[in-house]
Amino acid sequence: MTDLDLKELQRRLAEFAAARDWQQYHTPKNLASALSVEAAELVEIFQWLTPEQSAKVMDDPKFAHRVTDEVADVLAYLLQFCEVLGIDAAAALAAKIERNEQRFPVGSAEPKIPRRHSTE
Amino acid sequence: MTDLDLKELQRRLAEFAAARDWQQYHTPKNLASALSVEAAELVEIFQWLTPEQSAKVMDDPKFAHRVTDEVADVLAYLLQFCEVLGIDAAAALAAKIERNEQRFPVGSAEPKIPRRHSTE
Amino acid sequence: MTDLDLKELQRRLAEFAAARDWQQYHTPKNLASALSVEAAELVEIFQWLTPEQSAKVMDDPKFAHRVTDEVADVLAYLLQFCEVLGIDAAAALAAKIERNEQRFPVGSAEPKIPRRHSTE
Amino acid sequence: MTDLDLKELQRRLAEFAAARDWQQYHTPKNLASALSVEAAELVEIFQWLTPEQSAKVMDDPKFAHRVTDEVADVLAYLLQFCEVLGIDAAAALAAKIERNEQRFPVGSAEPKIPRRHSTE
Repeated sequence: MTDLDLKELQRRLAEFAAARDWQQYHTPKNLASALSVEAAELVEIFQWLTPEQSAKVMDDPKFAHRVTDEVADVLAYLLQFCEVLGIDAAAALAAKIERNEQRFPVGSAEPKIPRRHSTE
Repeated sequence: MTDLDLKELQRRLAEFAAARDWQQYHTPKNLASALSVEAAELVEIFQWLTPEQSAKVMDDPKFAHRVTDEVADVLAYLLQFCEVLGIDAAAALAAKIERNEQRFPVGSAEPKIPRRHSTE
Repeated sequence: MTDLDLKELQRRLAEFAAARDWQQYHTPKNLASALSVEAAELVEIFQWLTPEQSAKVMDDPKFAHRVTDEVADVLAYLLQFCEVLGIDAAAALAAKIERNEQRFPVGSAEPKIPRRHSTE
Repeated sequence: MTDLDLKELQRRLAEFAAARDWQQYHTPKNLASALSVEAAELVEIFQWLTPEQSAKVMDDPKFAHRVTDEVADVLAYLLQFCEVLGIDAAAALAAKIERNEQRFPVGSAEPKIPRRHSTE
């Protein structure tokens, strides 16, 4: 991870949209939809791969480029969404991690999936 | 935006998963799916709202809490996805912004939607 | 709606996949992902449109073709998903409609969105 | 598959929405979003399962109920979307299957995923 911070990226995205008069499209509702569309484009890359193939996806430069590009798009719409609603994404995540550390104590952690399925 | 950086959050998420033995579930394929599910939970909050209602969603504390929580979840899965594939999300976005500045020059910018629809 | 029934379409899709040896990719997990990707492609068509523009989308032949094509893709993956798991989609929906008629009686129906938002 | 046809289910859904004055929310844009949210709820059931676990999901009555319920929701929103735009989903799919039979002839069919990934 570089030292580029989210605040700076969010500001550049806001300037980019303003310069092109795209803010009119950037309702929270539309940005949430756009975020989900980009997330689906990431899923699409993996949809027919086995778990093992999915773990090697960066070995193929063409796949690696697509994956990296979709990551950028997801982050871009997440930051634009946060911009229009005044949300601090990094602070929200830090708070969530703290809550989850209480909710899922180490050692007594529930498995992510029901026992029936995780053990069969 | 706080001064919490993505690198630090990504590291804490990796430790959190490792301590609970959840890494076995964290294939890139599964994390991309989980990211898209969280993005859909954000969309769900807005699905029946008008554009105007969507812009006021943070005025209601209950909605504001849900929205902030889903933002945290989206960012969490995005960073965990980047962790397992060795992707620098902030650098990917910075590079994408630069490409888009070339692709959509100010002044000659194409509207986001076809003229037929944007002007009728 | 034509008299083509879902059973017949589901059978043709199964034969199509079998003839191309694609069944190996058609785990329920993969088909659920593919369904969600096609649903996102439908959302993408509408993501920057106003509610009013979205209602006129079939007036433009190019948009109408894209929308119809995505509807076909969503239904295709839904039926393939049902095929591999032995689910009768039409019966599932009929049962759900009956449950919802009990759950949301006419006259006392809750609005779909919280009053605070629906009335402001 | 039962002999319930899509036309009949679509008509019942339209009556259900009309009786509760929900048509005001049923713009094509909103219904496409709702469809994608339901598809994501289906994905969520499978997100941490292995391919093998996903194939046995109907063996567990609790999972079977959730899966069937989400299938009903996806079909419900697909038919409501088609209702408001005047699309015949079954005819759209029949036409698509015919196009795909031309596009992917048996024997020379491209694999669904790049050779590099499908064979390694």
